[in-house]
Amino acid sequence: MTNKKKYAIGIDIGGTNMPCSLVDEFGNIIKTIEKRTMPEQGPDAVVDKIVESVEQIIQFFKKNINNGTILGVGLGTPGVLDLKNGKIITGPNLDSWKNVPIVKLIEEKIHLPIRMDNDANCAAIGEHWVGAAKGAQNAILMTLGSGLGGGIIIDNSIYRGSHGTAGEIGHISIVPDGERCACGNLGCLEAYSSANATVIRALKQLKKKETNSTLKENNISKITAHDIFLNAEAGDLFSKNILEESGRYLGIGIATIASIFDPDIIIIGGGFSSAHKYLFPSAIEEAYKRSFKHVMDNIKIVRAKLGNDAGIVGAAKLLF
Amino acid sequence: MTNKKKYAIGIDIGGTNMPCSLVDEFGNIIKTIEKRTMPEQGPDAVVDKIVESVEQIIQFFKKNINNGTILGVGLGTPGVLDLKNGKIITGPNLDSWKNVPIVKLIEEKIHLPIRMDNDANCAAIGEHWVGAAKGAQNAILMTLGSGLGGGIIIDNSIYRGSHGTAGEIGHISIVPDGERCACGNLGCLEAYSSANATVIRALKQLKKKETNSTLKENNISKITAHDIFLNAEAGDLFSKNILEESGRYLGIGIATIASIFDPDIIIIGGGFSSAHKYLFPSAIEEAYKRSFKHVMDNIKIVRAKLGNDAGIVGAAKLLF
Repeated sequence: MTNKKKYAIGIDIGGTNMPCSLVDEFGNIIKTIEKRTMPEQGPDAVVDKIVESVEQIIQFFKKNINNGTILGVGLGTPGVLDLKNGKIITGPNLDSWKNVPIVKLIEEKIHLPIRMDNDANCAAIGEHWVGAAKGAQNAILMTLGSGLGGGIIIDNSIYRGSHGTAGEIGHISIVPDGERCACGNLGCLEAYSSANATVIRALKQLKKKETNSTLKENNISKITAHDIFLNAEAGDLFSKNILEESGRYLGIGIATIASIFDPDIIIIGGGFSSAHKYLFPSAIEEAYKRSFKHVMDNIKIVRAKLGNDAGIVGAAKLLF
Repeated sequence: MTNKKKYAIGIDIGGTNMPCSLVDEFGNIIKTIEKRTMPEQGPDAVVDKIVESVEQIIQFFKKNINNGTILGVGLGTPGVLDLKNGKIITGPNLDSWKNVPIVKLIEEKIHLPIRMDNDANCAAIGEHWVGAAKGAQNAILMTLGSGLGGGIIIDNSIYRGSHGTAGEIGHISIVPDGERCACGNLGCLEAYSSANATVIRALKQLKKKETNSTLKENNISKITAHDIFLNAEAGDLFSKNILEESGRYLGIGIATIASIFDPDIIIIGGGFSSAHKYLFPSAIEEAYKRSFKHVMDNIKIVRAKLGNDAGIVGAAKLLF
């Protein structure tokens, strides 16, 4: 018996793209193939593209890797999932798919073990395996993107809750009669600290306040969180204040996470975390105001390390 | 070798009383001795009383129990603890004790294994062992008393966090610029839903509002949460509203717990939970408003079962 090196294929099914990677047993990405998701074409078309990506990865593997074995395929999937039965119950980012048995559909065409978890959990698993949370026993990942997701590592394993829905950190209730969240409820953390929430607040304040913000020079209806960041970088005080405000709200969430979990580390990831320069200092200041100093002193708060790769690497880790 | 039945001694060190019980391996309390704590007399005096209680329990045991063995003594302790070194770092309810090596002090006088955990964790362990959370894999205990404490059971074990301070559910931040909490911060759940917070809000509203509440017939400066409950029971609408308001705030906390943990069950205990008739319906209604319906539908919300015994039974469980 030869001592074969182990590999797995990780896929991060996003609303726009779905990168598919060959990942080795040390968490290194060896090869990536990326296709557009186009969920509006329906589950069967998307599954066909996933299968095609996997087959292309397998071909690459056969051609380039000697003495290795592929353990299976891991899927990082958005939406509300039935992990036990491998189903997407509802996929708001997947053209509102309902009850799609995605694991079964892929298993019919690929004869490898298929594992699935939600995208935020996969990102947390990835960061814990080879990223910012490496070596932490208890770690919380907060992903700041258009929404705000979360993943919880407890005792070195992902914590999924009793019914697979744990980690909805974006829906911590921080303002009793606050802003309407995308989830339909009022005052969720996501409605204050996500990239979308930041844009909405900026637009509201631009309308309300007398300001000579350079943001006004943009096409107002198309402003993104990245525009706000760029304007802050260029010295626009209004933009800086808006980002720091999002940071302060984020700090309320961090304080709650700290009080409840007392983790080794809280990791902030997602695209919007690129504005960390403005978000983090105010977040940490606010978190200190709202929690016990000796608790906060113990907890590292850092930026995620793997960027967009966290979900792929974590999905692959489901096989190891 | 005979097959001896196993017992442990559990002690719940409160600010006022410290019951000490013999507990069998099934979680039954066999015998209790209760002494006044009087923490103002200092740690040595309190330790002497703990030792006396334990010796009295041992005497009872020798006289009445055949074929049994006592595994050790478990302490449920309030305050901020250093579990690794068996110290009370600060004990706000223990006359502000600082750096008391309570485990060592007791070990010097009692030659049995001594274990310690904080009082809220012990209550959660007790409820999980033989109370309302029995059989639940993941359970959250919220104790409503003068403050608001919490205990987290994950995968059938107490979750203490990375530095022993997890479970501070009372300090979830629910109102950004809200009421001042006993911890010094603003807007903590405890500052809205605890018995003390309820009394404070009642007094404020009595001053502000035109009302013919029967609460006014009490000595205003001595009103307790129990008085508010009794007035509500007697038909006083003002008192009923005050309790329901505390319930709604509690519901905000429940929603956050549900979104983050997705547990099997959330248990509400503590003395103030006796007002559950008014607290729970509004809490559950509010929690539904602030979380995903399919998540809340999965989670049982019930009253604790063991009352004041939960902490003692849980402290004893530390030995089994």
